[in-house]
Amino acid sequence: MEFENKENRTEIGSLGEFGLIKHLTEKIIIKNKTTIKGIGDDSAVIDFSKNKTLISTDVLVEGIHFDLSYTPLKHLGYKAAVVNFSDIAAMNAKPSQLLVSIALSNRFSLEAVEEIYAGIYMACEKYNVDLVGGDTSSSERGLFICPTVIGEADEKEITYRNTAKPNDLICVSGDLGGAYMGLQVLEREKSVFKVNPKSQPDLTGYDYILERQLKPEARTDIVDLLKDLKVKPTSMIDVSDGLASELLHICTGSNVGCSIYDEKIPIDEKTFNTALEFKMDPTVCALSGGEDYELLFTVDISDFEKIKGIRELTIIGHVTEKESGINIISRNGTQNPITAQGWDSILKKE
Amino acid sequence: MEFENKENRTEIGSLGEFGLIKHLTEKIIIKNKTTIKGIGDDSAVIDFSKNKTLISTDVLVEGIHFDLSYTPLKHLGYKAAVVNFSDIAAMNAKPSQLLVSIALSNRFSLEAVEEIYAGIYMACEKYNVDLVGGDTSSSERGLFICPTVIGEADEKEITYRNTAKPNDLICVSGDLGGAYMGLQVLEREKSVFKVNPKSQPDLTGYDYILERQLKPEARTDIVDLLKDLKVKPTSMIDVSDGLASELLHICTGSNVGCSIYDEKIPIDEKTFNTALEFKMDPTVCALSGGEDYELLFTVDISDFEKIKGIRELTIIGHVTEKESGINIISRNGTQNPITAQGWDSILKKE
Repeated sequence: MEFENKENRTEIGSLGEFGLIKHLTEKIIIKNKTTIKGIGDDSAVIDFSKNKTLISTDVLVEGIHFDLSYTPLKHLGYKAAVVNFSDIAAMNAKPSQLLVSIALSNRFSLEAVEEIYAGIYMACEKYNVDLVGGDTSSSERGLFICPTVIGEADEKEITYRNTAKPNDLICVSGDLGGAYMGLQVLEREKSVFKVNPKSQPDLTGYDYILERQLKPEARTDIVDLLKDLKVKPTSMIDVSDGLASELLHICTGSNVGCSIYDEKIPIDEKTFNTALEFKMDPTVCALSGGEDYELLFTVDISDFEKIKGIRELTIIGHVTEKESGINIISRNGTQNPITAQGWDSILKKE
Repeated sequence: MEFENKENRTEIGSLGEFGLIKHLTEKIIIKNKTTIKGIGDDSAVIDFSKNKTLISTDVLVEGIHFDLSYTPLKHLGYKAAVVNFSDIAAMNAKPSQLLVSIALSNRFSLEAVEEIYAGIYMACEKYNVDLVGGDTSSSERGLFICPTVIGEADEKEITYRNTAKPNDLICVSGDLGGAYMGLQVLEREKSVFKVNPKSQPDLTGYDYILERQLKPEARTDIVDLLKDLKVKPTSMIDVSDGLASELLHICTGSNVGCSIYDEKIPIDEKTFNTALEFKMDPTVCALSGGEDYELLFTVDISDFEKIKGIRELTIIGHVTEKESGINIISRNGTQNPITAQGWDSILKKE
């Protein structure tokens, strides 16, 4: 891998911890007025005046959440930031500050860490977020990235996941299952490579689903769109573990049931065809494949006129009384309960 | 080790990620009015109204920051929380919320994770902090703890590290070097055990320095004390990497020099005697040994009367013009420049 064999390899140890932090962060220009003090003291200082502070963290572990044999380090940095931004979007708000802690072994050169940070900075630039802190450490083995994201919101705008109510419409942004199918393609090419190391990976034509897996986006644009439409969702969550798992979170949290319609679930043509190629059911991929980072939300039925016909949004069903259960209805009208088969990291043997 | 051999061992995998989080957090009772929403949504929600938000993160990595052969898991959880609280104390403020991300391999049982969390909860209880979020993940090898701490402060009270000025007095709380000497004792007993596994560790009489290493405290009481004394420090930092390293941070950040006096550095008798036993210079242990988590701060000279005679505080020198350099003056009057030999994690070979 590039970061291991590079000729002009610089050892991180030559900089020391403080040197490394300085090197990685000295070009930061603060973008948000709310950032009073960024990197360089014992803590960052943020001023949200009357708004509430939102904070969330999602850790990414080598061998569990990413495989460096097919994940470019810059994409990894980008994704680590974006999946955290998505948690703030899922509160119907926008991220503004980020802290990133990284632990890594001496397998990684300075150039490798720079690539990870280049991805983090690219995400910060795109989403108008300030990197205000973090920590770097060595590890005995492997790479760990632990970002913490902060955002702000007016209390009236914050949308929780436990406040859906019967008759609400269930909506999802974009399309689902793509990130999961992208992962299947990458894993297949990795297996081929293992058998025949001279083989070249054949990724032609899979661009869309590969990008869904390797360079996901946080749907802060949907947060803006809903504001423009004057729609305040009644509940919201991001699709990180798969549609089924997120629906269960909303329904059990809100003490309601739901009916969603198989044929309504938005699946991109490329995702659909790749699923068939892998002899998988595209609906199952959308339900159980995670990492799409789309927003799943409910709106009051009175908002139907505002939502319908918006290209980026799909109404996939509606909220019911708890007693009706959490169900998916197929094209032929049969009803089946939804169970979580979400992507769940399994503990690895040491 | 206990967490590996326990008879009633419960595999974490039997709970799943959501089950594990629920199990570990279901007994949380929110303590702070500022905590609007704790664990259970995409992000936590915090209300600091007119105060500024402080945020910091410090990662702890197995094999780098701690050695489980002599660190009880409960102490580890406690320490992971406290070293983060200390970063907020170092801003002259108090912590109020905590997020903890943990990655661990299947070497750890549920009972082991419970012990770590018991320590985290004990720290939260003592410091009146709410655990409001986090993430759990598996790792291929080892244990990683990545806490993020949040605090609030009136803008006028926040104390940075780059605002010391010539003639300020330099003060430190408590005593220094103890945590480092505690580590030496633990490492010595570990070496003895390696040679003779039947040996019993001889830790009698080292209680104070062992506690300094294994169960440090964040000096939020000093933050309260200074408020009571009506002293606003001109700059502040916590002693995590050693007095020398922190003095360099304050002086280079503030563009000033300093003179501190060898004989004024507060060193506990037990630390002093153990250093001699190890044929080490106690002053060097205080200067370069880290992890004491005392507060190092400067005050205007007009505050001298308020500070002097306070048992928990020691004046160790004064700030000078930058041109005078950063110096330590020995008992016999000789002056030497201070260089950082702080505790700096060295990248481990994978």
